Amino acid sequence: MPSIDINCDMGESFGNWEMGNDDAVMPYITSANVAGGFHGGDPHVMRETVELAAEHGVGVGVHPGLPDKMGFGRRKMDATPEEVRDYVVYQLGALRAFAQRHGTTVQHVKPHGAMYSMLSESPEHARAVMEGMLEVDDDLIYLATDMNIYEVAQEIDGLQAVYEGYVDLDYRADRSLIVEKQLEDRDPELVADRFVSIATEGVVEAATGEEISIPADSICIHGDNPNAVEILEAIHDRLDDYDIRLASLSEVA
Amino acid sequence: MPSIDINCDMGESFGNWEMGNDDAVMPYITSANVAGGFHGGDPHVMRETVELAAEHGVGVGVHPGLPDKMGFGRRKMDATPEEVRDYVVYQLGALRAFAQRHGTTVQHVKPHGAMYSMLSESPEHARAVMEGMLEVDDDLIYLATDMNIYEVAQEIDGLQAVYEGYVDLDYRADRSLIVEKQLEDRDPELVADRFVSIATEGVVEAATGEEISIPADSICIHGDNPNAVEILEAIHDRLDDYDIRLASLSEVA
Amino acid sequence: MPSIDINCDMGESFGNWEMGNDDAVMPYITSANVAGGFHGGDPHVMRETVELAAEHGVGVGVHPGLPDKMGFGRRKMDATPEEVRDYVVYQLGALRAFAQRHGTTVQHVKPHGAMYSMLSESPEHARAVMEGMLEVDDDLIYLATDMNIYEVAQEIDGLQAVYEGYVDLDYRADRSLIVEKQLEDRDPELVADRFVSIATEGVVEAATGEEISIPADSICIHGDNPNAVEILEAIHDRLDDYDIRLASLSEVA
Amino acid sequence: MPSIDINCDMGESFGNWEMGNDDAVMPYITSANVAGGFHGGDPHVMRETVELAAEHGVGVGVHPGLPDKMGFGRRKMDATPEEVRDYVVYQLGALRAFAQRHGTTVQHVKPHGAMYSMLSESPEHARAVMEGMLEVDDDLIYLATDMNIYEVAQEIDGLQAVYEGYVDLDYRADRSLIVEKQLEDRDPELVADRFVSIATEGVVEAATGEEISIPADSICIHGDNPNAVEILEAIHDRLDDYDIRLASLSEVA
Repeated sequence: MPSIDINCDMGESFGNWEMGNDDAVMPYITSANVAGGFHGGDPHVMRETVELAAEHGVGVGVHPGLPDKMGFGRRKMDATPEEVRDYVVYQLGALRAFAQRHGTTVQHVKPHGAMYSMLSESPEHARAVMEGMLEVDDDLIYLATDMNIYEVAQEIDGLQAVYEGYVDLDYRADRSLIVEKQLEDRDPELVADRFVSIATEGVVEAATGEEISIPADSICIHGDNPNAVEILEAIHDRLDDYDIRLASLSEVA
Repeated sequence: MPSIDINCDMGESFGNWEMGNDDAVMPYITSANVAGGFHGGDPHVMRETVELAAEHGVGVGVHPGLPDKMGFGRRKMDATPEEVRDYVVYQLGALRAFAQRHGTTVQHVKPHGAMYSMLSESPEHARAVMEGMLEVDDDLIYLATDMNIYEVAQEIDGLQAVYEGYVDLDYRADRSLIVEKQLEDRDPELVADRFVSIATEGVVEAATGEEISIPADSICIHGDNPNAVEILEAIHDRLDDYDIRLASLSEVA
Repeated sequence: MPSIDINCDMGESFGNWEMGNDDAVMPYITSANVAGGFHGGDPHVMRETVELAAEHGVGVGVHPGLPDKMGFGRRKMDATPEEVRDYVVYQLGALRAFAQRHGTTVQHVKPHGAMYSMLSESPEHARAVMEGMLEVDDDLIYLATDMNIYEVAQEIDGLQAVYEGYVDLDYRADRSLIVEKQLEDRDPELVADRFVSIATEGVVEAATGEEISIPADSICIHGDNPNAVEILEAIHDRLDDYDIRLASLSEVA
Repeated sequence: MPSIDINCDMGESFGNWEMGNDDAVMPYITSANVAGGFHGGDPHVMRETVELAAEHGVGVGVHPGLPDKMGFGRRKMDATPEEVRDYVVYQLGALRAFAQRHGTTVQHVKPHGAMYSMLSESPEHARAVMEGMLEVDDDLIYLATDMNIYEVAQEIDGLQAVYEGYVDLDYRADRSLIVEKQLEDRDPELVADRFVSIATEGVVEAATGEEISIPADSICIHGDNPNAVEILEAIHDRLDDYDIRLASLSEVA
């Protein structure tokens, strides 16, 4: 019986500005990637997001970003590996405190936006971040968005890593993702089919028709997709039929 | 043999802007109150300050501030008890992560500037912060700058609190402090005399001549005093003569 | 034939976070109060908002806030009159540059949130801000949200001031406003009736039934009201029937 | 009789954090590049710096930076030409308002740190910024730190540009500058010799001995050099002997 985690970026509201649809999405997922206050989120939003995750038994991870709120952490910066590591340690620690207030802890780390791209392109940056997170808590899991990073993570002594797949975006044949500027409605049935395909067989069809291997133990859903809830419902509807079990990241790691 | 802690605000540099004289002061103190990135400090400064404290065996506490870097956390804000608690939890957690990277932990909490004043004037704010910090880690000590706060702290179930005294500022007869806009050179011998007086007898002479009771287990030294190091040397010179033992905050709590 | 201005807060989005409904509202108003980047807005949002206002021939004013993005400029701060004046001058200047790029200028100043409250409660703060804005450009109009501020403004030599009325909130008999936490749908017909009443007779009915005098030359509409556009349409529908002319703030000042 | 301007970066303090030595340096220079609040400076510092410049009859320019206070504007960011232009327009406008309060205006624009590097490497970014500043005020002068930018500036219709030389840093034979991590004491006599050589003959000796052409009409002095004042005094001592006249940037443009 295949087990798989569903993760989603959460807690990206900031002050009076709302983003995403956390209340509606949380009941359907098993792991929440919570913004750490740099690209999005703030102390109040982080507390509320941890509370919401706890209510639904959802595992909490940190979704650290670059210190660029105006650019939503999506612009690369000439930051050193040590600087990026310090940003991750800081945001990770802040979230851990909110988790500790709830008797729980932070389960995983998944860098956001341009920080993720910087780690993907520079193993030196990736290693600095991964070693930094391990020094804080060696039970933490690195949630890897692409194979470059996944491979670096596997070389880090003692680090658990999980590779995540995408079902609401299209893959190219080389396993890179076709990222659209604007998220649009996705056909929930098509997305759910892909979910089943990755969960049960570890494969998905690329935009150009090839079947490609996606050995993912977690599926990332974009909560800001206009029909994210519909997609998640379609996915949940398949679970019984295909004997797929939703599991926390720590179970699949 | 009387034991007493010496604490000092540290890590208030920010980015390229330097403040204080941490390298020179750290060897003389037993507790460092490390800025948490809101009024001062940043992730890199926090890491370096934790490293410096670890080198000298100095206990690390968080010195959380209001989110007002331009005003250096010295301007009161209409923030609710829950907001202030969340600011403390966030900064506390961030510092804990840097401490954890060094195999150590955060020992105490001492709010900065206007946040401290807000807690002193509003027991509701003080209680929210104290309960928040306990929920993160119930070994944390609250370092209390005045009697108002110390009394609130003592009513919180399970919270250890330490009252701190000042020797490089003058007291009024009512135990309030005469705070000057600009720190100036202080006569190191006079300051060291006061240190001995508080450490051994728990009293000090007020500006108006009265002897007042200062039952402090920690002494705060202003590291940005122009002659802070000279003051600290004068204090250390008295330790043997008066059989005073410097002790960490956790020992005196 | 009575002339009146309609003003609305605009440009309060920030980075990737959207707020308000500027595109839909702009066609119906004559004055836009544009956030200056402190409580909301950023350089890109400011440019786009000035462009949108220019397209629709809408007068541009600055809506300066306190430097507290996390609190959306709604929390009072212990800032001095000079500090608040400097915040206004800075944001005013920034917006003027975007206006100058479009061959236009900034027509008015209307402080936001807690900054407005601070000016209303402290004539010293109000005067500092008003004198500061005049020193930058003595054609600027102060858009006054209450009578306290309006009276201070009238005492400032050479300053034009316009008093604004509200139709989508209720007044108390003492002309103070009943501000709700959450804006809700308002009956567009009722709101439009009030608009006509203020525009033609300078009066409105208070929540407790009394008719009170509101000698306003501008009406503020909350663009974040869920049915703001419906309200504005209902108002526009009355203009012909009641021979009310919409006019820019500079015409009614 | 050769005329030359002396410019210096100013107003880079922030909140309670001081940087540079503005009071001591201002009497010796003719143009002040004032930080705009993004990499350094804040509204209060900007006002004070404009006041100080006005007292000494020093021309005011804006020294805009990237929105990265933690990195002091020294880290390149993946920002578009339009984004960078908006940052410059915003900071330029803010400074203009402080200048207007003093009956003066902003005379020039000189981008800071990584923003300067981005313009130097990308003519598209440089043109966006230059066109943006001209749209705000077509009397503004662009102060060009290297030949790349100077050449782009000369192609912009209606834009005045001044090329600046450096005397407290060494040139390579290709006219690039050898930038040291840490500014150190420079021999004031050597620096003053270079000043005379550039002012009177437009040449300087490179680190490797070649004489290179530096057709500069302004000389940049690093105010944060530990002996900046001594250097400036040595320069001023040569003015009479060599019949060099200090002139504002607008005179030499």
